[in-house]
Amino acid sequence: MNIILFLGYLSLLFVGGAIIAKIAKKIGVPDIPLLLVFGVILSALNVIPKSIVESSFDFIGNFGLIILLFIGSFEMEWHIMRRVLDVILKLDIFALLIVWIISGVVFNFVFHLPIFSLIGLLFGAIVSATDPATLIPIFSTMDINPEIAITLEAESVFNDPLGIVVTLICLSTLGLAKAENPIFEFISLAVGGIILGLIGGKFYEAVISKIKFEDYIAPFTLGLVIAFWYFAEGIFPSITGYEISGFMAVAIMGLYLGNVIANKKEYKEDMEKVVTFLGELSIFIRILIFVLLGASVSIPLLEKYAFPAFICALGSILLARPIGVLIATAIPPVRPLAERIYIALEGPRGVVPATLSAMVYTEIVKHPNIVPKAIAKLMPPIELAGTILVATFMTIIVSVILEASWARPLARILLKDKTSNL
Amino acid sequence: MNIILFLGYLSLLFVGGAIIAKIAKKIGVPDIPLLLVFGVILSALNVIPKSIVESSFDFIGNFGLIILLFIGSFEMEWHIMRRVLDVILKLDIFALLIVWIISGVVFNFVFHLPIFSLIGLLFGAIVSATDPATLIPIFSTMDINPEIAITLEAESVFNDPLGIVVTLICLSTLGLAKAENPIFEFISLAVGGIILGLIGGKFYEAVISKIKFEDYIAPFTLGLVIAFWYFAEGIFPSITGYEISGFMAVAIMGLYLGNVIANKKEYKEDMEKVVTFLGELSIFIRILIFVLLGASVSIPLLEKYAFPAFICALGSILLARPIGVLIATAIPPVRPLAERIYIALEGPRGVVPATLSAMVYTEIVKHPNIVPKAIAKLMPPIELAGTILVATFMTIIVSVILEASWARPLARILLKDKTSNL
Repeated sequence: MNIILFLGYLSLLFVGGAIIAKIAKKIGVPDIPLLLVFGVILSALNVIPKSIVESSFDFIGNFGLIILLFIGSFEMEWHIMRRVLDVILKLDIFALLIVWIISGVVFNFVFHLPIFSLIGLLFGAIVSATDPATLIPIFSTMDINPEIAITLEAESVFNDPLGIVVTLICLSTLGLAKAENPIFEFISLAVGGIILGLIGGKFYEAVISKIKFEDYIAPFTLGLVIAFWYFAEGIFPSITGYEISGFMAVAIMGLYLGNVIANKKEYKEDMEKVVTFLGELSIFIRILIFVLLGASVSIPLLEKYAFPAFICALGSILLARPIGVLIATAIPPVRPLAERIYIALEGPRGVVPATLSAMVYTEIVKHPNIVPKAIAKLMPPIELAGTILVATFMTIIVSVILEASWARPLARILLKDKTSNL
Repeated sequence: MNIILFLGYLSLLFVGGAIIAKIAKKIGVPDIPLLLVFGVILSALNVIPKSIVESSFDFIGNFGLIILLFIGSFEMEWHIMRRVLDVILKLDIFALLIVWIISGVVFNFVFHLPIFSLIGLLFGAIVSATDPATLIPIFSTMDINPEIAITLEAESVFNDPLGIVVTLICLSTLGLAKAENPIFEFISLAVGGIILGLIGGKFYEAVISKIKFEDYIAPFTLGLVIAFWYFAEGIFPSITGYEISGFMAVAIMGLYLGNVIANKKEYKEDMEKVVTFLGELSIFIRILIFVLLGASVSIPLLEKYAFPAFICALGSILLARPIGVLIATAIPPVRPLAERIYIALEGPRGVVPATLSAMVYTEIVKHPNIVPKAIAKLMPPIELAGTILVATFMTIIVSVILEASWARPLARILLKDKTSNL
């Protein structure tokens, strides 16, 4: 690859992305749809060749998710979160599983596949993680009950790694990754990730209590976080044959560093340095992920699948999530119904579905013969990859536009004078 | 490339690099030799495959130099620098040219090449840029005349892009890049870069005076800096056939942003954000560059060329630089001789020679047939690449170790009570 040209593309993404994000803010709309459309335009005008987009996503996707999950959970305030911990657990376990299954069923129905086909379930898994980043600026200008905001935010911190875990399980059951017993795999991935993340946090603390890294704290921290991710994703499975979710481990490390280590006076300054740097880096990564997802979706793909993908998106947004949230939050202690409906209607999808769909898409397009025959018979690999990509793209763009638009009016109707009831 | 494994390597470089830099600080030695040796060990133990090192350097080298040159000149204080501007100009023009030629002649002599062969001159060009990063921590703990410190630092800010320019001229005269009239090319590259950098700075200011980027200031700034670099290195030559140094443009943009824009109250906060982020990023890049240079140098290469390379290093450090500095600073107004000797003996080489040598090495090793026959007859391409790599490696390691060790005793002898004479 010509590196000069590659840097030229990079500059276009950063400058264009920054201007678009700024325009979005100015006209008061979320930046995600505009960044996605910017990507579609770049690819439609053939400004950035598809090969560059596809070859970059593997690195940007994995590296980007590590940074985003780490910083997301680092900044989560545990002492506020624990007040709504029961709701969060219900949402992250039961709502997530229901959203996964129903989104998958809708997809299979739309594309005339067997109703519980793994193809739809893969789509369901990819879109199961929420991303309230678009809601936070809206919430900050309205008088919303802070516990609702925290619930949505905290839900998303943990459904990010869990969404990756269920996606991985679908991939391995599909034969696209190593196969295991799905239930056992879920436990190994999620619980293994949590334990490893805690070990990582403790280990990190032990090291920095001995060595003052000063100027080198950021490389050491990021390096160690990636090292634990690598242990989970690379070393552990190759030794034991079992898998651990490196992304879950990273999220737990972030939570530990942000809530235990950052609260100790002697580490405060170092942790601030790390979080400032990684927070800034995550702005670059968000731009790259959304623009590159848009650039993966070509106009022919859109023309072919836009309508069914739109139906899948509505199914996930208006059916799967509401049902999932309402059932999950029906477990006592039950919160007011209006509040549950609000949460059900506010679960915009963002960076995790974007990354997963683009990674799955490029992997299948590059190696279509990794898709097992039984699956390929139901849907040719390239079509499978294309439908999942476009359906995820639609789910992100529609959920963000709809849910950002109605966040304020819905709050006025549903949450009015509810503050005292919580 | 397996991206999981790649991220594993990255974590090793960051964690290992941070620990080594910390150890260096603790035992009071410069970190560059230790980082280089760490790289040699990684490659000797075959921990990181050569193919990864070689394929990464193209990106790390170009992207890294953009960041380092930008931040280096951004942080240069023009109002202090202008007091010693005459010395700096003499050093950056005359001393640089003399160091280039003499280092090249020594190399040719050592390797039995025609005395003015371009092969040696390429080496001379690569090692012509200085990097006082190792001296700054030493200076900060001693009572050195601040004008000497500023002179050495400012000299290096501009000999970085100029070193790249003379390297590029050697490469193109060698037939490894597009050939032009060298003198005309020097003017086009250097002066073109300065003009483009000024335009870039003015353009940047015009944009940020209209648009408040807030959270997106860092992606916009870095994106625009890379865009101007890309214009110089990619677009302009393909349209006009003439070359402009993108690195010079980046350095001038940095100087403008750091000294004009950052001094205006309305931009102060934004500029601080940018410089904090890029400063932090440059720590990662420095680690990567030195460790990867070390990893490019294999033990067989070292065994083969260590001794002649060591002689080349001594020639550049003890002959070329002293002669160059003493002649250049003989132009009136002449400063005290002791001070001139001190400057002559303190010009450690660092990140620019490291990057250039590794980039030239990997390019030639990957495509040995790009070396023209006339040159290949003097020295086989692979040997040419290897000798330049090892000689540069030696020049960096020896200059840093020697000049950091004698910085303090030399100052005591040469600069004692000289403060009032300046």
